Amino acid sequence: MAVPRAIPPINRLRVAGRLTGMMSEDDLIARFFAPLAGEGAFGLLDDAAAIAPPSGCEFVITKDMLVCGGHFFADDPPFNIAQKLMRVNLSDLAAKGATPFGFFLGLALPKGISEDWLAAFAAGLAQDAREFGFVLLGGDTVKGPLTLSLTALGTVPKGKMVRRTGMRAGDKIYVTGTIGDAALGLKLRQNADWRAALAAEAREFLLQRYLVPCPRNSLAAAVQRLASGAMDVSDGFIGDLSKMARVSGVSAQVELARVPLSPAARAVTAMDGSLFEVALTGGDDYELLVAVAREHCAPFEAAAHAAGVAVTCVGAAVAGTQPPVFVDASGMSRRFVQPSYSHF
Amino acid sequence: MAVPRAIPPINRLRVAGRLTGMMSEDDLIARFFAPLAGEGAFGLLDDAAAIAPPSGCEFVITKDMLVCGGHFFADDPPFNIAQKLMRVNLSDLAAKGATPFGFFLGLALPKGISEDWLAAFAAGLAQDAREFGFVLLGGDTVKGPLTLSLTALGTVPKGKMVRRTGMRAGDKIYVTGTIGDAALGLKLRQNADWRAALAAEAREFLLQRYLVPCPRNSLAAAVQRLASGAMDVSDGFIGDLSKMARVSGVSAQVELARVPLSPAARAVTAMDGSLFEVALTGGDDYELLVAVAREHCAPFEAAAHAAGVAVTCVGAAVAGTQPPVFVDASGMSRRFVQPSYSHF
Repeated sequence: MAVPRAIPPINRLRVAGRLTGMMSEDDLIARFFAPLAGEGAFGLLDDAAAIAPPSGCEFVITKDMLVCGGHFFADDPPFNIAQKLMRVNLSDLAAKGATPFGFFLGLALPKGISEDWLAAFAAGLAQDAREFGFVLLGGDTVKGPLTLSLTALGTVPKGKMVRRTGMRAGDKIYVTGTIGDAALGLKLRQNADWRAALAAEAREFLLQRYLVPCPRNSLAAAVQRLASGAMDVSDGFIGDLSKMARVSGVSAQVELARVPLSPAARAVTAMDGSLFEVALTGGDDYELLVAVAREHCAPFEAAAHAAGVAVTCVGAAVAGTQPPVFVDASGMSRRFVQPSYSHF
Repeated sequence: MAVPRAIPPINRLRVAGRLTGMMSEDDLIARFFAPLAGEGAFGLLDDAAAIAPPSGCEFVITKDMLVCGGHFFADDPPFNIAQKLMRVNLSDLAAKGATPFGFFLGLALPKGISEDWLAAFAAGLAQDAREFGFVLLGGDTVKGPLTLSLTALGTVPKGKMVRRTGMRAGDKIYVTGTIGDAALGLKLRQNADWRAALAAEAREFLLQRYLVPCPRNSLAAAVQRLASGAMDVSDGFIGDLSKMARVSGVSAQVELARVPLSPAARAVTAMDGSLFEVALTGGDDYELLVAVAREHCAPFEAAAHAAGVAVTCVGAAVAGTQPPVFVDASGMSRRFVQPSYSHF
């Protein structure tokens, strides 16, 4: 998952309303989180949940952490912070072809955090829990610099998790939605000098794409049935596609002109061509990269259309172990010094 | 879980050896964590694991976070920090009667963290993974203030997770091991004025009990077969026992003179009687509280003896909804202003 660059950690949160200094951990759980608890969570009265996958299925489990000052800003609306936490994990489930089952929540909360903040955060969780059919199964709350951890469980028929390593030579490579919006939105948050030149509507669109990802869970069933391999784009399109090819033991040929950009991202890259590289490598997209064998492409495209998810074929996997070749509009092969965000 | 009091957050870590500034997240995972990966984790090459419980079983899942400056000190040996992270979660599994299955690891790591630190941390994980039959299934590493999150999976026969809410009037209440050592060890770390008066051996024992918990997983099978209810003591004996009684809808009668203390804790409380309250309420014990119906007490005690785990009956559950009564050696009922550590 991408950590935005060059943002100093911010540990101060807006404090409003009565402080949680008055609340016990039990009160906090009972008030804000127990209403979200699902079957097997015992109303969060225990330290653990007891769950089993449905008959014939297994669990797909993934875990992503978000750090204040890294993955989000201290003054982001807590409702949206909760949504981002849910959605970066839901996106991983979608890429694996899994149906959301439930989640475990870990919260390190600074001492001065307010009940208003917590109430809005819990409302964001509740909204996405409803929208994506996800329930809270347990977790832990501790005092510390604001850090959010979520362990997400999904289900797939046994043995049917779609692997990152499954791309095969000859597969077409699809990407969902549009690439680069969130990375450009982050640049806007960092007061990019082209900010003022951008139309207000485009600005809002990019900022929103950084704030609240749109995971492609409605495509998960098609991915599960039809994909050879898949992963979500979180660290950057170029780096993530290169990683998928490498672990699959194949190379790829990608046409950069086919990488889908939103009108807002097109407006930005038209102003400054160098920002195309930011879009391709900045990450935080939470779109899916899906490798599909030729014979499955037509049904995959039909399923995506039915699910209302735009998919674009950007190239194909080819035999070989060399890194993927990214060809630009002029037919030249393009190299990227930093193909994705580096965490360390 | 207990957060030690009055320790300011410490974000600085000892830095030695080559810095991880040179490493990618993939390198870090491949070098330090992939060797610990179990079946279903796909060598940590994917964003998710695919797992199912053994036939006839379900998963028991719990999640605990540890914060630097809270649950451990920045200058604690990273080997021991990893052990504490594993063991606080293993303790929850033991209390639920579950057999360790595997874990997901979330690490927020400060930028300057060294490869030496990570190598020692990974070695601590590996040691406890071997000792407790636990495998790494996945996780996430991000940049941020040192925060550790672990989601632990265990297995029990379907429907057989031992609940915190299961204590019934008439049950005997047992506690494993000894209570208060870690809380007194933390006081030593905070330079308690009685530090110098304590024999070196006792001092080392208490410090070690704070640093590395000893979870009672060898008792889990007996807990699963014979307990009405159970939880682990993490926030403080008095508060946790009170919580277990409350959520079980019963009261309890406890004789404080029967609460098992180590020789070192006895030496400390003999010097200053007020420290008995610290021992009873300070937390970080990771011992088990187990409610056992009268007819199961003899086999439970025999199983504990066979497992090499000391168990002590400290009282019994009684009908009623009033808080448990804690009777001291003089026969007086004792009240505790702060029965356990408060996180917020």
